[in-house]
Amino acid sequence: MTAPSDRALVPFVSVAQMMALIGRIGLKPMLQGLAAEIEADFLRWERFDKTPRLASHSEIGVIELMPTSDGESYGFKYVNGHPGNTRQGLQTVTAFGLLADVATGYPILLSEMTLLTALRTAATSALAAKHLAPRDAQCMAIIGNGAQAEFQAMAFQTICGITRLRLYDIDPAAMRKCADNLRGQGLELTLCTSAEEAVQGAQIITTCTADKQYATILTDNMVGAGVHLNAVGGDCPGKTELHRDILLRSSIFVEYPPQTRIEGEIQALEPDHPVTEFWQVLAGRAAGRTDPAQITLFDSVGFAIEDFSALRYVLAQVRAGADCDLLDMLADPDDPRDLFGMLLRAKAV
Amino acid sequence: MTAPSDRALVPFVSVAQMMALIGRIGLKPMLQGLAAEIEADFLRWERFDKTPRLASHSEIGVIELMPTSDGESYGFKYVNGHPGNTRQGLQTVTAFGLLADVATGYPILLSEMTLLTALRTAATSALAAKHLAPRDAQCMAIIGNGAQAEFQAMAFQTICGITRLRLYDIDPAAMRKCADNLRGQGLELTLCTSAEEAVQGAQIITTCTADKQYATILTDNMVGAGVHLNAVGGDCPGKTELHRDILLRSSIFVEYPPQTRIEGEIQALEPDHPVTEFWQVLAGRAAGRTDPAQITLFDSVGFAIEDFSALRYVLAQVRAGADCDLLDMLADPDDPRDLFGMLLRAKAV
Repeated sequence: MTAPSDRALVPFVSVAQMMALIGRIGLKPMLQGLAAEIEADFLRWERFDKTPRLASHSEIGVIELMPTSDGESYGFKYVNGHPGNTRQGLQTVTAFGLLADVATGYPILLSEMTLLTALRTAATSALAAKHLAPRDAQCMAIIGNGAQAEFQAMAFQTICGITRLRLYDIDPAAMRKCADNLRGQGLELTLCTSAEEAVQGAQIITTCTADKQYATILTDNMVGAGVHLNAVGGDCPGKTELHRDILLRSSIFVEYPPQTRIEGEIQALEPDHPVTEFWQVLAGRAAGRTDPAQITLFDSVGFAIEDFSALRYVLAQVRAGADCDLLDMLADPDDPRDLFGMLLRAKAV
Repeated sequence: MTAPSDRALVPFVSVAQMMALIGRIGLKPMLQGLAAEIEADFLRWERFDKTPRLASHSEIGVIELMPTSDGESYGFKYVNGHPGNTRQGLQTVTAFGLLADVATGYPILLSEMTLLTALRTAATSALAAKHLAPRDAQCMAIIGNGAQAEFQAMAFQTICGITRLRLYDIDPAAMRKCADNLRGQGLELTLCTSAEEAVQGAQIITTCTADKQYATILTDNMVGAGVHLNAVGGDCPGKTELHRDILLRSSIFVEYPPQTRIEGEIQALEPDHPVTEFWQVLAGRAAGRTDPAQITLFDSVGFAIEDFSALRYVLAQVRAGADCDLLDMLADPDDPRDLFGMLLRAKAV
């Protein structure tokens, strides 16, 4: 049997290799690098094929495919969301992704994306806050201290200059886990006994809870003038975190409106409620924060372009020598029309 | 660094492993096994989540995602179609696929599907012909002798009892390649100099050409009474193989109408032109061939359920001991909420 040709071999970045890559680059520089890649792609937003992600819902979770293309590269992510998984010792969210060459349709990178999604989500949140939060923001509340919390903390420290964190989770063990993990990172940590206590004095409020249901993590009276809200956890039909009255008082910024209308906090509003596409703020085409008393809300659900940016970042690292495996994933006979002959020569027929 | 847990490891069937699997089972028994799996899934058609595949078109090709779910398992295939690829020595179609557990969202199988798609396409065509072609059919014409042709030939021999093949390709080298590959398989082969010659005496006509454009492989006068047409190559908007007048004389059977209206031969017809869903013929809910003089057309574009069936067939083989690799694809920390802690313990932060 002949060995597969180079074209049949797809670079694959495993979980262990992604951890080694984060370790080599450093988490903070990697968050900055991802934010820069996402910003660059958001600035060429109109060049991308965009579609709401393709979701397959069940009673206990969702499996989604998130494709996009800039005409040269095509990328997609597979991601699930199963809030009940933690009860079995499994991740709520796992993911992997792929990049392909639009000119040939051949895959060029397969990568774990459970870790990479955590990083890109935090990088996107911090990028938005850099443009929407009060300029002098130093204190952030994080409500929901699960798998995403520490990544949000590190990204806001690195990209927005946050120095103080106020943590709260309905499960004290999750809060302690988060605080333990963040100790020694130069952040001043306060553990709170309620969401009400956590938001005291915070200029930025991040919500990243996981229940797949309408929840009211923040009620109207908890959100004061001038605050930036970073709503990460509401990302499914029927899954929201903020009371509707907060939305009515906020200037709302979103990734891709057709998807956010289905999945975001704004599913609680009329379909024509005005929202601003965040890329337009980056591009100088729309205003961000215009008033210190304004409440800004980044209604983040996670969009395919962010995954595309993250995969391209990883591909650049692989091309610069980062460790990966090569998967024999694509049948590639010498004569491309002779797929059957490949089987004959391998004595499979 | 701790080794990844079992749950983080996804079985992966490479191209070499798929060739070994085909070799061990035998191509003909495997085509029969796949046809049986597809038939069983078509018989429970209504239990599947169905959607037209999500296509990203460029001027020279298409990249598609094809998801489906039966509520217990979720599957999707990545597949491209780039007719110009062969000029660079690349495959027109490459593919890979994934199965996941709906209850957890965790992937349970990743597999090459370039070879597997060739097999499942042929198995589906033969399954349809078994129910739609003239009962005594022994002679099939194959127009377009590229990568799919030999698989069609073997499937029709195995499943429909075809003994004589009439081959034609616009490129004589492709036709010779096809004939050389099929020699010794117990089929009587005739090489023809035109499509007109190829269809002489054939009770089944299979078209599997690859150009991404409207083509007229068959004109109206070439298709006589009683013939079964197996149209495989027309599977993209703007890509068809049959003259419209043939369609108007035919009883048309399709996989999933919302997708076939976009991609199949019937894109040349009015959107309400009557077609029969093939699964209903299998289920005894719709008539197949009712008259020896009837022209039947299986307007095949390839549907996600067929890939789901094929992946489940492969998963059963893997569970029975077929060779595969284990990919470290899913981050799976001991405490599922402690993704960041996994990085800390790996000294990546």
